[in-house]
Order: sequence, then structure tokens, then C-alpha cells
Amino acid sequence: MLQSLLPRSSTAASRSARALRCLNAQPARRNYALQAADASDPKLSSIDASQLEITKTTTPRDLLPNDQLVFGRTFTDHMLSLEWTASEGWLKPRITPYQNLSLDPATCVFHYAFEAFEGMKAYKDKDGNVRLFRPDMNMARLNRSTARIALPTFDSEAMIDLIKKFVDMERRFIPSQRGYSLYVRPNMIGTQKTLGVGPPGSALFYTIACPVGPYYPTGFKAVSLEATTYAVRAWPGGVGNSKLGANYAPCIVPQMQAATRGFHQNLWLFEEGGEEYVTEVGTMNLFAAIRNKDGQKELLTAPLDGTILAGVTRDSILALARERLVPEGWKITERRYTMKELDEAAQEGRMLEVFGSGTAAVVSPVRKIGWRGKMLDCGLPDNKEAGPIATRMLDWMMAIQYGDEPHPWSVKV
Amino acid sequence: MLQSLLPRSSTAASRSARALRCLNAQPARRNYALQAADASDPKLSSIDASQLEITKTTTPRDLLPNDQLVFGRTFTDHMLSLEWTASEGWLKPRITPYQNLSLDPATCVFHYAFEAFEGMKAYKDKDGNVRLFRPDMNMARLNRSTARIALPTFDSEAMIDLIKKFVDMERRFIPSQRGYSLYVRPNMIGTQKTLGVGPPGSALFYTIACPVGPYYPTGFKAVSLEATTYAVRAWPGGVGNSKLGANYAPCIVPQMQAATRGFHQNLWLFEEGGEEYVTEVGTMNLFAAIRNKDGQKELLTAPLDGTILAGVTRDSILALARERLVPEGWKITERRYTMKELDEAAQEGRMLEVFGSGTAAVVSPVRKIGWRGKMLDCGLPDNKEAGPIATRMLDWMMAIQYGDEPHPWSVKV
Repeated sequence: MLQSLLPRSSTAASRSARALRCLNAQPARRNYALQAADASDPKLSSIDASQLEITKTTTPRDLLPNDQLVFGRTFTDHMLSLEWTASEGWLKPRITPYQNLSLDPATCVFHYAFEAFEGMKAYKDKDGNVRLFRPDMNMARLNRSTARIALPTFDSEAMIDLIKKFVDMERRFIPSQRGYSLYVRPNMIGTQKTLGVGPPGSALFYTIACPVGPYYPTGFKAVSLEATTYAVRAWPGGVGNSKLGANYAPCIVPQMQAATRGFHQNLWLFEEGGEEYVTEVGTMNLFAAIRNKDGQKELLTAPLDGTILAGVTRDSILALARERLVPEGWKITERRYTMKELDEAAQEGRMLEVFGSGTAAVVSPVRKIGWRGKMLDCGLPDNKEAGPIATRMLDWMMAIQYGDEPHPWSVKV
Repeated sequence: MLQSLLPRSSTAASRSARALRCLNAQPARRNYALQAADASDPKLSSIDASQLEITKTTTPRDLLPNDQLVFGRTFTDHMLSLEWTASEGWLKPRITPYQNLSLDPATCVFHYAFEAFEGMKAYKDKDGNVRLFRPDMNMARLNRSTARIALPTFDSEAMIDLIKKFVDMERRFIPSQRGYSLYVRPNMIGTQKTLGVGPPGSALFYTIACPVGPYYPTGFKAVSLEATTYAVRAWPGGVGNSKLGANYAPCIVPQMQAATRGFHQNLWLFEEGGEEYVTEVGTMNLFAAIRNKDGQKELLTAPLDGTILAGVTRDSILALARERLVPEGWKITERRYTMKELDEAAQEGRMLEVFGSGTAAVVSPVRKIGWRGKMLDCGLPDNKEAGPIATRMLDWMMAIQYGDEPHPWSVKV
């Protein structure tokens, strides 16, 4: 039990600091102004990676055989953690043995969902180097997420430094085998132990990691999606673009209900003005490759309008597509598109391929979409499990992630 | 540290039970079908209140003087807790000393906001009896909330029995002084310790309690609200009608920003078809009393259309108003109403009074509402802090809550 991971008792000082944070909140620092005053307050300590204190485990875990790795089930020996208080800022970073958090039952993370997380992977390249993929994107997003729910922000570079040190310590858990990696889960929770609804006066950032296998151990398996018409994941002015715990629990039942009807995942729509716009799939972004009526091939995905998550994989696929598919005659667009548009394309044989994108699978090909009693064929031949774009994207992404292709996105630890 | 409050290791049995729950989910048990298969599965144990195991504290806390009680800051000696697993159902209920929860950092409540809560109060009447107010409403709502996020449901009556036993044990913490009470916080969290996004295979229900003083220790204080036009709390098809942690963290920053502009709370709107509908205020429901153009006095509040919380106080005020204000010529309506409508009423001197409603304050009078650069006067004379309806509602509600008026809503412990 990490006694010192407990929130400090709320002193008068931290209380008045909280009040100050509240009163000093500046309305327009980012586009949307939707954040609390943050930890960049010069009176508060920022992260000092050089102060990292390491306590190594005395009972190192055995490595599981690669074929027994299940996503998110078994973790490495250690965890990285940093406490924050409204009166002091970021306290000394620590790497300790992986261990339980001991928290008062009144702690605000249990009641009001003060929690924001990231998902990223560390890969071992053929020379044994450990590499992260675009960690700057994850840390920038985490800062946006935490600010949106009045949790503290932090210096991204210092945090990446710490995560690198942590991942390096755990390198023995990263399988060398291609397709395997270390899933890294940075998380921030509010730790104030009072039931009043307000900005948390203390928080805990921590990172845990688990070795994972390839999403498709025996090659792609195309999935079926059910378009969800009775529940909505996110809406303009909401928090669907932040990686908050709050966006996940409400998504489970629609996903389970899609499963009862034989679908692998549900597809989230957003209805407006009588149109059903395609937004996300389960916990991934979605891409559709269609041939337009004028013969133009278009790879499209929903825009970052606040209702979808700004996926790192989504961003990477867009960049690679612009670099490598545009010269082949593809048009790459971020725009709103509707189920009706997909349905029409499917009926007219203009649907080329559809795939989800996310950190876990990189790309996840879709064979069919159930929508209002119809079944849309996404263009995959019966004997194929992935279309050419999904197949090439996975290759391109893995070549960068595993360091075969030198690329600024791949950052050595 | 409650070692046994830890989630059990996920056995193969619980895993297959989870899979079954998922596959057996029935699509249409409630109106909206938005729930997972629940714990009413006859193969699983339901709550058995007779099995309650009590461990009394050996270090009872000193009582704080009444004037030092702060909402949600100091708790009683004990807590009630029940674990649930997908393979076994509800395990033996326990009352133990108040203590920390020790949870694996991968526990799903920290990552995906598997958490739903309730707020209710226990009052001491003039004969020393302890009384709960409409606990059946709270338990019914908690069951709706947990089902919506794939947490288990439970037998409400058995749970009320347990809460009564717990509250009775803590009766020394309930001040006898009028206006004081014991705030009771039932909470349910998902405790599965894996990062996969799915229905939790284990959960913990617990209840803690804290003595609280009156919301207005020196009488009503009317507040000012800022109508929030840049963020939206809830929307149709979302989870705004469930009492989930997920609905709270995203509300803090708009509230803090309203505070920077001198308002006490923010007022949530929902925009549709160019109209801005009034939904909720901060963490309360909202009532407006207006005189219509034809002279009819109307007490109105937003309907339960999925975008507002179904407040127990809201429901009680509506019932009392129908019983006691209708004979005086009032019209009581649950309907959508807009800021424009309020603005017009204010400008024409037809706004009689506005108040929030919730468990904490019962009623909270509103003096003015800032909206798009305008300041709406809610009808309170400068020398008054509450209108006649708010004043009478508080009296009526307290008479029932404190047992002065015998009423089926007030349930002796």
C-alpha cells in the first residue's frame, strides 16, 4: 500500500490555493476556454524529472510466454507515480514496485469521475532498442483532457522523460517478437477526499504497463458493426473529444447489445437535422474508402468537431495517406459523412473498404454494418479479411513503430 | 485496508459468467433497453440482509461541534459494503470501521468511470427517531444508473434494510438540532482489475455518511446563475438522466468559469432548433414560477426527457405543488421552456420566482440569471432572499423530513 499516494489532508493553505485557482481561472487560454486554472501557475512546482526516486521491486515477476499475454491483464514490476496538490504543484516523481492504491472511500475519483487516461505502446526494434510512438501526441491530449475536468496540467516533455525512464526499466517485459509490444497506460485521478463537487485539491498521475500481443495473432479478421440508433456517445459542447473515463462506461451496454445481435462492435452516430452522421466505432476512429459518383477515390473520416476522439492512429493514418495515397490519385478528407451516403455507396458498389483505427489494432477492417434493418456491405471480397489500404497502413505503421523505417514519429527510449 | 474489498482474481468461471451475461442480455426489459443483463439472474445470489456481518470500530471518533460541520468532509465511524462478482452475485453484506479501499491501479473504476452514486439524508425527529426521506426513490434511481453502465442491479428493499441498519448504528452522529442531518452516500464502483473495456466482472457497493448542517445556516441566500452557452451537460440518448460520476467531472470548469464572472452557479441549457431550453442548474433541478400572459400563475420545470436528472426533491416538490398549490389557482407543469420565454417574462414583470431543488438545500432561490450579456431579474424584491413558494416548500419538506407531519415519504429507521 502506497501510503504516500494518499491525498494529503486538506489544509487551510491548499483550500485557499484552490479558491485562488478558481478565481484566477483565465477564460480564453485555449480555443474553447474550457479548462480550469492549471498547474503552470508559477507559484507551484512543475515536474522535475531529475528528482526521480526509484525503489526497485525485490520480487520480480516471471515473464509470461508470449502466447499467454492478454491485453490489460498482467502488468510489469513497477509503476511510475507523481502526486499533485493545489498548494504545492507537482511533487517528486517516483518509480516504485507495482502496488495497490489505498484511497479513502470519499475520494473524488470514486464519485465524480475525475479521471483521464492515455494509451500508448513501446516497441522493441531489431537492434533491441525500445521505441515509443508519438508520445508527444499522447501527452498533449492528456493535458487537454485533464484541463477539461479541472485536473492539473503538466510539462509534456518532462513527463515523456519520466515515461521513457519507466519503460526502459521495464524493457525485459517487451517481447522481441514482431507484433508484440508493451502497452503503456498513463492515468490521472482526482484524490481529494471530500464529497463537495468542485475542482480536486489533489491528484495522482500514474503509469502502469502490460506486455501485449498482436491484436490479430493469426492475421486480420474483419468485423461487423451495428450502427447504434438509440444511444449517442458524444455531442457538440460535450466531452467526446477528451480521453476521459466518463466517455467509456456509458458505451458498454450498447456494445453488449450489439453483441447479442451478432455484431462485434457498435458504430456511433450523431443525428442532426434528420441526418445520421458517422462518428466513431466502439473505442476506435473510423475510415471509409469509397469511389465517388465521379469516379474519384476518397478516403474519408469524421472531422475533429468535438464529438470524436482525436486519435493518434487516426492522425498518423491521415498523414501517411496524404503522403503516400494522394500521389496514387486518392483524395483524403476529414469531413462529416452520413450513413445514407455509405448506404448509397454500398448499394452502388462504390464502397471500397472500411476500417477502424486505434492504438490496440492500428487498423481493424470492417466487413459489414447493420443499420436500421439493412446490412451494408463494406466492399471486402468474401475470401479477404482486409482491404488494400488497411493492409498497407498496418505495414507502414508497423515499419515505423518497430523502427525498420527511420521516422521522427518513432522515439528511442 | 479492507483486503477483502479487493476484486477477486478473474477466474475462468467468472470470465465465462461474464460472457454469458453479455450473450444473455435481453433487449427490452425496461423502456429504453439500455442495460446489461443484471444480477437478477437466478443463478446468482441476491442480497441477503440477514447475513449482515458487523465489525465495530475500536476507536470511535469524537463528534464535531455542529457549527464545524462541513458538507462531505468528516465521516462517521463505519461504512456499509457489499461485493458483487459476475460468477457469484452479491456476497455477504458487511459493516466495518470506515477505512481506505485498497485497489489495484488497473481497477476499471480508475480508467473507465464505472461509478454511480446516490445522495440521501437521515434526519432525527423530535422524539429521537431517525428518519430517511423516500429511500425507495434513491434505490430505484441507483438501479437505473448502474444498469446503464453495466454495473449490477440489486434488490432495493434489501438494500434499504441494510442502509437503515447502518444509519441506525451511526445515529449518534446525527445532530438533534433542526436543519442538521446525516448525509448518506451510497456508491457503486466497478472493481475488475483489467484494462479491457467491457462489463466489469466485479463491483463494490458501499455507503459512507457524514453529519451536515443546514445549507443556509443563517436563512436563505438567493444566488445568481450564469447560463452556459459554450458547453452542454447532456443530450437525448446520452446519460444525463443517470446519477453517474461521468456527469460530474465535466461540469466543474463551466462552474468555475461562471464563478470568475461573479456568478454562484452555472445554468445548463440545451439548444435545439435555434431555441435554448433550460435544463438544470449546477447540480440541481430548476423551477420557475411565472405569470403567463393570460394571468395564469404557472410553476414549471423541465420534463424528464433524458437530459436532466430525475431529482427526488424535484419529484417531491411537484407532488406537493400539485397537492397544495393547485387549489390556490397554480398550474403545475413539466414542460420544455426556453431562456427566451424567461427573458420575456422577466422583461414584462411576469417572473415571480425561480429556485433550484436538490437534496443538499431542498430549495435554493435564484435572484438573477446572466444570459448572453443580459441579466434576467427573477422577481425577488431586493430586500428578500426567497420567494413565497420556495419558502413554503422548504417548510413543507422539512416538516415531512423531520417527522413533524406524518407522511409516507418519511421512513423510520
